[in-house]
Amino acid sequence: MALTQSDDTKLEIRILVQERDEMADRSTNETFDASQLKNHTLAHKVYDAVVKTQSCQKHYETFCESTQIKNLQSKINYNFKDKLVLTRAFTHSSFVHEYNEEIKSYERLEFLGDSILGAYVSQELFKSFDNFSEGKLSKLKSALVNEDTLSELSMFLGLDTFVLRGKGELKEELTNSIKCDVFESLIGAVAVDSSLSDALNVLEGIIKLYEKESEKVFFSEQRLVMFDPKSTLQEYTMKNFGSLPKYEAMRVEDKFCVELWIEGQKKAEAINISKKAAMKEVALNFLNKNKEISKN
Amino acid sequence: MALTQSDDTKLEIRILVQERDEMADRSTNETFDASQLKNHTLAHKVYDAVVKTQSCQKHYETFCESTQIKNLQSKINYNFKDKLVLTRAFTHSSFVHEYNEEIKSYERLEFLGDSILGAYVSQELFKSFDNFSEGKLSKLKSALVNEDTLSELSMFLGLDTFVLRGKGELKEELTNSIKCDVFESLIGAVAVDSSLSDALNVLEGIIKLYEKESEKVFFSEQRLVMFDPKSTLQEYTMKNFGSLPKYEAMRVEDKFCVELWIEGQKKAEAINISKKAAMKEVALNFLNKNKEISKN
Repeated sequence: MALTQSDDTKLEIRILVQERDEMADRSTNETFDASQLKNHTLAHKVYDAVVKTQSCQKHYETFCESTQIKNLQSKINYNFKDKLVLTRAFTHSSFVHEYNEEIKSYERLEFLGDSILGAYVSQELFKSFDNFSEGKLSKLKSALVNEDTLSELSMFLGLDTFVLRGKGELKEELTNSIKCDVFESLIGAVAVDSSLSDALNVLEGIIKLYEKESEKVFFSEQRLVMFDPKSTLQEYTMKNFGSLPKYEAMRVEDKFCVELWIEGQKKAEAINISKKAAMKEVALNFLNKNKEISKN
Repeated sequence: MALTQSDDTKLEIRILVQERDEMADRSTNETFDASQLKNHTLAHKVYDAVVKTQSCQKHYETFCESTQIKNLQSKINYNFKDKLVLTRAFTHSSFVHEYNEEIKSYERLEFLGDSILGAYVSQELFKSFDNFSEGKLSKLKSALVNEDTLSELSMFLGLDTFVLRGKGELKEELTNSIKCDVFESLIGAVAVDSSLSDALNVLEGIIKLYEKESEKVFFSEQRLVMFDPKSTLQEYTMKNFGSLPKYEAMRVEDKFCVELWIEGQKKAEAINISKKAAMKEVALNFLNKNKEISKN
């Protein structure tokens, strides 16, 4: 059956159409020269190509024929047969909304890539941590498959310079969330262009290259410490002093200053607009200063 | 670093050890004959073998050499090289707790199988529903990867008769949650015994066989209707009457009776101990009586 739209969906569509039209209005009323933006990237060049030709056809040719995209394919050891899928992996919805043409954003590819990544990480953790319970494997998986780690991999491949965004978005710094999206959508794109097993191979290759060049172990228990420093610290103080660490938060203007106290002694402090983030930060600061704790 | 145990973990372990010891006490004090239980299955036979020999070694031989397990392997078109992994796929933690031997439960395999299933379903949905947004794909995925659907597949393969449980658990009816666990752990076990790509092939084979024998389409939009009947009904009434369906709940002894009203007319009712479940049920009842709605 063809599902009908609920009121929420209708409202969402109305807002999106309105935003798109406003963007289109701005794009005809304003003169916009992407080359004037700092950090002029391939994405900006493509934006220029589209503006000049008033056609999206052009954007994908410019994109796929660039040296950077060729280098990326050589880096991930995979050559796309369907260049449209490759372009789509980097096409943000703001780009699609701005041009009312037959182009699609990366969201569906991201959906696919996300689950492929999940399967790959689960398998590697299963193999690497023989003695871990299911619960600990799940925790470590969360410490690996998250915005921080995936945007690190995304930056490692330089994917941030490829993200095709609309004019409004293009002026803003790329968020970690989008960096992470395009990493996942690239993996999804390989699966669509070829097969799930090729996507898994590409992923494996990327992780190996990352480990080699960064000299870091990707599937490392240390990630768990960094991801959840408060639990690590709590385990340390409980074991060594039989007490919990104390976090004291104070408002400092529009931010929070959080102090870490262990056994009546102030050990570290951190300032952040989010109290929760400041607590995590102060625990991490302390662990970083006392590296022997997380190695024990 | 070796993570130390938090107080919570220590408490959990203490409780588990206590429960295990209590079970072991009972197993020596009571006479227990699994063959006296109704629904005497392969799992019961294995239980008997363990009780008689006081050894878990025996259980896995009895298990793997059974005709039923051979039939299962032929049904899923995969023969396990490592029979221990196959046995583990069906070993519930209650069995492990009862015998203090070197056997492991299926939980780690389930962790792995769950994510392989996620990748497979995502890929199939991506291919089958070309015009679905990422949001709609995610919803349909939830309608497919859940306890109801997975326990259906589990029962289709007859996995319920293979679950090795401890004495206490063995007397109880198998829950949907465990049925679903062992389906996932079987897929995980194939990946461990062979490869991720073989696990994906086995999954594909199972779904095809299920579709052929049940004459149902597995990757069907209809699942979404059945999974979330309230949304489907709401879309129908909004489109046709411009109003929402009304649910009126009354307490009837220890249960809830929920009536469904559309445009001032009572259309159906359902009784359940959970109000939420009764609301879902009444919407589903109405949709089942008016099949043309979900086909439109």
